[in-house]
Amino acid sequence: MQRLAFSAVVLALGTVVPAGAYAQAAPGRTYNTVIEKLARGEPVIGGTIDTPDPDTYCAVANAGFDFTWIEMQHSALTYSEVEDMIWACRGAPAIPFIRVPDATEGDIQKATDIGALGIIIPMVDDVQKIRNAVTFAHYPPLGKRSQGGGRYGALWGNDYRATANDNVMIVAMIESPAGVAIAREIANEPGVDAVFAASSDLSSFSARRQGDPEYEALVSVIKDETLAAGRVLGGPLAWLGSRPEDGYLFFQGPGAGALIRTGARATLEDSDPCRFLPPGTAPVPGEDPCEE
Amino acid sequence: MQRLAFSAVVLALGTVVPAGAYAQAAPGRTYNTVIEKLARGEPVIGGTIDTPDPDTYCAVANAGFDFTWIEMQHSALTYSEVEDMIWACRGAPAIPFIRVPDATEGDIQKATDIGALGIIIPMVDDVQKIRNAVTFAHYPPLGKRSQGGGRYGALWGNDYRATANDNVMIVAMIESPAGVAIAREIANEPGVDAVFAASSDLSSFSARRQGDPEYEALVSVIKDETLAAGRVLGGPLAWLGSRPEDGYLFFQGPGAGALIRTGARATLEDSDPCRFLPPGTAPVPGEDPCEE
Amino acid sequence: MQRLAFSAVVLALGTVVPAGAYAQAAPGRTYNTVIEKLARGEPVIGGTIDTPDPDTYCAVANAGFDFTWIEMQHSALTYSEVEDMIWACRGAPAIPFIRVPDATEGDIQKATDIGALGIIIPMVDDVQKIRNAVTFAHYPPLGKRSQGGGRYGALWGNDYRATANDNVMIVAMIESPAGVAIAREIANEPGVDAVFAASSDLSSFSARRQGDPEYEALVSVIKDETLAAGRVLGGPLAWLGSRPEDGYLFFQGPGAGALIRTGARATLEDSDPCRFLPPGTAPVPGEDPCEE
Amino acid sequence: MQRLAFSAVVLALGTVVPAGAYAQAAPGRTYNTVIEKLARGEPVIGGTIDTPDPDTYCAVANAGFDFTWIEMQHSALTYSEVEDMIWACRGAPAIPFIRVPDATEGDIQKATDIGALGIIIPMVDDVQKIRNAVTFAHYPPLGKRSQGGGRYGALWGNDYRATANDNVMIVAMIESPAGVAIAREIANEPGVDAVFAASSDLSSFSARRQGDPEYEALVSVIKDETLAAGRVLGGPLAWLGSRPEDGYLFFQGPGAGALIRTGARATLEDSDPCRFLPPGTAPVPGEDPCEE
Amino acid sequence: MQRLAFSAVVLALGTVVPAGAYAQAAPGRTYNTVIEKLARGEPVIGGTIDTPDPDTYCAVANAGFDFTWIEMQHSALTYSEVEDMIWACRGAPAIPFIRVPDATEGDIQKATDIGALGIIIPMVDDVQKIRNAVTFAHYPPLGKRSQGGGRYGALWGNDYRATANDNVMIVAMIESPAGVAIAREIANEPGVDAVFAASSDLSSFSARRQGDPEYEALVSVIKDETLAAGRVLGGPLAWLGSRPEDGYLFFQGPGAGALIRTGARATLEDSDPCRFLPPGTAPVPGEDPCEE
Amino acid sequence: MQRLAFSAVVLALGTVVPAGAYAQAAPGRTYNTVIEKLARGEPVIGGTIDTPDPDTYCAVANAGFDFTWIEMQHSALTYSEVEDMIWACRGAPAIPFIRVPDATEGDIQKATDIGALGIIIPMVDDVQKIRNAVTFAHYPPLGKRSQGGGRYGALWGNDYRATANDNVMIVAMIESPAGVAIAREIANEPGVDAVFAASSDLSSFSARRQGDPEYEALVSVIKDETLAAGRVLGGPLAWLGSRPEDGYLFFQGPGAGALIRTGARATLEDSDPCRFLPPGTAPVPGEDPCEE
Repeated sequence: MQRLAFSAVVLALGTVVPAGAYAQAAPGRTYNTVIEKLARGEPVIGGTIDTPDPDTYCAVANAGFDFTWIEMQHSALTYSEVEDMIWACRGAPAIPFIRVPDATEGDIQKATDIGALGIIIPMVDDVQKIRNAVTFAHYPPLGKRSQGGGRYGALWGNDYRATANDNVMIVAMIESPAGVAIAREIANEPGVDAVFAASSDLSSFSARRQGDPEYEALVSVIKDETLAAGRVLGGPLAWLGSRPEDGYLFFQGPGAGALIRTGARATLEDSDPCRFLPPGTAPVPGEDPCEE
Repeated sequence: MQRLAFSAVVLALGTVVPAGAYAQAAPGRTYNTVIEKLARGEPVIGGTIDTPDPDTYCAVANAGFDFTWIEMQHSALTYSEVEDMIWACRGAPAIPFIRVPDATEGDIQKATDIGALGIIIPMVDDVQKIRNAVTFAHYPPLGKRSQGGGRYGALWGNDYRATANDNVMIVAMIESPAGVAIAREIANEPGVDAVFAASSDLSSFSARRQGDPEYEALVSVIKDETLAAGRVLGGPLAWLGSRPEDGYLFFQGPGAGALIRTGARATLEDSDPCRFLPPGTAPVPGEDPCEE
Repeated sequence: MQRLAFSAVVLALGTVVPAGAYAQAAPGRTYNTVIEKLARGEPVIGGTIDTPDPDTYCAVANAGFDFTWIEMQHSALTYSEVEDMIWACRGAPAIPFIRVPDATEGDIQKATDIGALGIIIPMVDDVQKIRNAVTFAHYPPLGKRSQGGGRYGALWGNDYRATANDNVMIVAMIESPAGVAIAREIANEPGVDAVFAASSDLSSFSARRQGDPEYEALVSVIKDETLAAGRVLGGPLAWLGSRPEDGYLFFQGPGAGALIRTGARATLEDSDPCRFLPPGTAPVPGEDPCEE
Repeated sequence: MQRLAFSAVVLALGTVVPAGAYAQAAPGRTYNTVIEKLARGEPVIGGTIDTPDPDTYCAVANAGFDFTWIEMQHSALTYSEVEDMIWACRGAPAIPFIRVPDATEGDIQKATDIGALGIIIPMVDDVQKIRNAVTFAHYPPLGKRSQGGGRYGALWGNDYRATANDNVMIVAMIESPAGVAIAREIANEPGVDAVFAASSDLSSFSARRQGDPEYEALVSVIKDETLAAGRVLGGPLAWLGSRPEDGYLFFQGPGAGALIRTGARATLEDSDPCRFLPPGTAPVPGEDPCEE
Repeated sequence: MQRLAFSAVVLALGTVVPAGAYAQAAPGRTYNTVIEKLARGEPVIGGTIDTPDPDTYCAVANAGFDFTWIEMQHSALTYSEVEDMIWACRGAPAIPFIRVPDATEGDIQKATDIGALGIIIPMVDDVQKIRNAVTFAHYPPLGKRSQGGGRYGALWGNDYRATANDNVMIVAMIESPAGVAIAREIANEPGVDAVFAASSDLSSFSARRQGDPEYEALVSVIKDETLAAGRVLGGPLAWLGSRPEDGYLFFQGPGAGALIRTGARATLEDSDPCRFLPPGTAPVPGEDPCEE
Repeated sequence: MQRLAFSAVVLALGTVVPAGAYAQAAPGRTYNTVIEKLARGEPVIGGTIDTPDPDTYCAVANAGFDFTWIEMQHSALTYSEVEDMIWACRGAPAIPFIRVPDATEGDIQKATDIGALGIIIPMVDDVQKIRNAVTFAHYPPLGKRSQGGGRYGALWGNDYRATANDNVMIVAMIESPAGVAIAREIANEPGVDAVFAASSDLSSFSARRQGDPEYEALVSVIKDETLAAGRVLGGPLAWLGSRPEDGYLFFQGPGAGALIRTGARATLEDSDPCRFLPPGTAPVPGEDPCEE
């Protein structure tokens, strides 16, 4: 897999301009490094956070991911807990993105106030939903976001009011056939920066698994409409390796629990090569150092 | 490295009887699987916990470790937080061990009440300190542990009062030359099940690093006295591989943060082989797929 | 009062099929024991929870109730707190039901993700509200519930995705004359398993007390429409004894605070029979052992 | 600035009747002292709370403010946290007002259940939004507020159900040109007690600063329509001094952080007059006691 | 059982003077109602608290108990949690007593600072331990308690410094044969107000159950020495009924969990008389209304 | 009051060398700015923290104080809460100092691990107590502080192990006549950097108020011995102004609650000059603008 591949796709499609389809004349400072990487055609990967622990958050945010995918749809995290995590780990390289539970004014207000630079909207099957998200996530004149207290200034600088509209990304997730049916409208809605093809709910809704032609046809629509609209295409991390030519650039990676399991397995096998061997298996053919 | 090796060492030293040098005539049921593994001469490894998050705790406790090393000396964890973690993750294979901040009556009482089956005493440089730990951690007639409410019964069974003395392990850490000076008394103190040679503080106190003869001489005293007393010998996880013939069986492994870093690196490299390459480096000699 | 009575009523009305009016062809495993009891015509009683304490939750969930009525409309409980309580007390006989504050996508998503098997919708005076609840609480093809992380699998089994639609009950509360006016539509809405006649708000809205003919007429409409639709009828616990022939099967019982008061009174009177006597009252006529 | 001034304005406009434009025939007991003060034409000032600490809350609530402006739009405070603060500080002179994140049924229900006597609705640019707030904040027959458990009774008395409609104030904030455009409808909506001209968002939306004629024209519309409707007029605290003749009576004051800074400066300068002097400045002309 | 009985015993033993054996010349205001009741010879009963929930605390503190027995020896409660509970429920009739984990300066300081008016010292088997408790719990000149911030003033009045020594009770628990051996010294130590014969640990230490002559002999020593010293005698609540002539006045009652179970059983049986019947049992002989 | 005055006193007494009486040959980097200021003879003032709120902490730490006096003797703050506050506000100008509840190994370990650079020991009336504090607060060879995980490195730099002994200050508080009696030993104990004359407990213990000759004689002993030993002298903030010639340099300032009150008073008076006037009082003689 070559980085070139991504750029090639990107170039073929014209310029990828995240947060730009909606941007104002004189773009300001960019501190959302995810936007910069995507603009260069590089893939970005988010580590998933679904537990309210600042130390765990920081471990993920400093582990090599480009952003944190703070999961508030399928977790019970409160904004108060998420605020503490983002703040405790300010300065980490991963940019905070929040998958909000819904696109209400309250959700988007709080997510942006506490400093998220990415808002991921689940289950978009209605244009009004993503339009609301865009509206509440951007300051006037682009949207109707309210100004007021928050951590954003201490996190991102005193010019936040002037620069936020260029740094807050909107990611629309299409997770059902009803969403696929309006994929073109979603992808072309001003202010939508990326469209994410969600594999798991798409299976649940379509009752088809990955690889099934019916399932793949749904995914193709999302992919084609997104790229045709010049937006960033997102999907599960497995597709970074398995669909390298498809133009996916924005990926959701594993959560802290899965990372701990992977890390523990590596650590324990390294320390004690016999630890996880099933009985009767020799790590090196012909020898079995793990049996007495 | 062979499992045989451990057993051989153990057999050479006589029977390893954790929690038994102090045990009553008719030993009861054993639910501390660490004791069972040690009795079979198998190494045990603990995953370190220093953050108050039940989900993170559970991820570690289910990741393949034999026990959790709940760090209360060098963390600000409260017993209330630790109680919630152990309870939330009841049934996980890793047995909860707590490194207490001190060997006071209150510390040991709370650590055992919330269900720890291992008490790790740091900085033992005084026989009275470890004697207090043994006394407060065991019910009469062996010790002076008070009965009362707690989670232990729901965690370990209705026969807890009758079986706890056989299931609660005491680990004494020797971390300074003053402690080394009384290593023989510590190792032979009734009720001490294991002695741990702490590498980091021992360096700090001795101003010598691992490998330095003076440092190694201190470690040798701990090792020799512990094995001579028929107790379990403990140390940092790196020594499992590097000192395989020395008889170490009880190891402190990495914490959640380190496991996340290790797991993230493995995941990200697997997804994107070029992610961590320094500029100009090709993963396969002769090809550089990471450059456009 | 005889259990027979309930069954007689039930039989007279045809089969009570909770979670079934909406069910798929091949129903799966049932782990919501409330559904099983109701199917047998047995009354079910919920202990109310309105405080975020896992120990208190567990005490209620193990005290003999069939379900817990986790009160999120008239309390400030967060989903994070409720998740911890349900998880800390997994395995208790009472099944978790949540009265949600509203029927938004976010509310229903979180309530089901954290493992509630009953969703109680307050203040239904609009068919769309209960229809949303049904939609967001059921997986496709019945509804639009999103899949994703959550505690449900660890709580209810690996077949949760396949069985959840048969185990999640929807209870619609009619609490106002406006709701009574559409009681027939509510009771007949597919996916509604039970209809609850709420006594207190119905008084507040109608400005009539129980017993007043106008009030009773409202209750009768709810009762008649619910039973005619073959749905389970719910009401306050007092009606279990006072309206035994009316077909009520689903009851809200007291909260932890009231149970503590009742329990304390019983305990204290048992310990000291004179404790609560008003001055000058003798527990046995003619003697006053409580005065010196 | 004279208190007379306020009364004069008030008298000129006819009676200010907060919570009364919507009130029932026989008004009950008033315990919302903000309403009483406003009825007397006195200005009321709220201390802003945006951090979840009961001690800090109490310090503000006892510091001389008339009410607390509990900020839930631009903070991540949960209702659970706010409930604890109000309860911990019951009896303090400042009356709890909550700026809710949105005017949903759930928001208003929780805000009133935990004992707020003022509901401040941000970003009103749609009559339905303020109408919902009024409906959910008032008991029948005026509104559709649900009865049920809560702290309100312990805070405000056993007659709360009968008196709440006369004691819960509704404050509508107009923060955008779209809101200004419907200022007359907002001010005349039954149940709206006060209208607040929000300076900061109005600047953000209009891209004009205070003093700019365009900005001031917007403010004038709000002011004129509010006073014409006989409602209370609100604004930022700075306007108490700077616009004394304009009829503003309801003010948002600084938050705890700003008060701490002000208090620290006063304390430190009082203790050490040289503490904040820039180099070369003498507190008294001609002497420089701060240099050695 | 008659209240007279208690008084008779009390009178026979001379005056019970809790908090008085150590008191200053001019005793101040008494707000510890437990002291007043004991002085009148009335039994006092404490409801046990071992979970950090203010609502549950308040339910217990308002349920008819004379004091709350806040359990910090056999629970993981932090002083921060206990402070919140006492404060949230200020004004409740039950007086807060804390069983501290140990008699350290820190424990006693925090327990008294947060407003406890009773300090219960577990496991007294050493005179120095109870002497420390007395010293740290009383202001000079009686002890060495430090003054400083705390909730005590807001809870108990501005004269707290002058009156605390007369209102803070010290209860020494004798729970082992070693404690029994010094029962006389404990009971006669100045500043000890009550001595508690702990049944459960006494069994654990003596390996004898209640009723066993050896066990009863230990209890008799505690009882006799306590009464001979003119101190209040305490024990488990069951002894209020079962040992009415023995002079016990200070009792530990059940915890919130047990009260919930008792309350639920009463409530559920009252609502549905057949609920807890074993199969084949009729509540009234000859009829079985619980079978269909 | 002149800064010169302080320096003059300091010079007269010889060099003030905080953290230096015990320092190693080659002192490292100094990041404890309190030490630097004291070395220059400048007074340092701490803002008191007794509530577990990071935002409130940050407000105090950024308000102009030289250090934060984190109060853990007379509050129920846990180390977990304090850790979060220090971390959330890293980078603030005020250096974190903790008044520990006691000088146990656990207290000092946790206070230093979470990053405090000052340890304030209350109630020193025993040389062993302050000696323990010095021992546990310093790394070998000066003391016996254990190394291990903690926030200190992320807060103060990678050279923390090498530099901590030069940056952690020890402040001994003398609060009783017993402490005064050993003031010379305390002040001359190696590793003690400052001695604090505590006014409030000294009154409580001596039963004398400030100004009383007996009280002042006690204070003079502390002052004289401290200055004679070349240590920094500390006391309540009021003494900065009232005893300028006495050589006090280290002061405890007010807490957040008091600062809020002061700040609110200033703010409210500024906004509304009539707010706090007693009836009949005119702010300017001869006019009464506050009456209608």
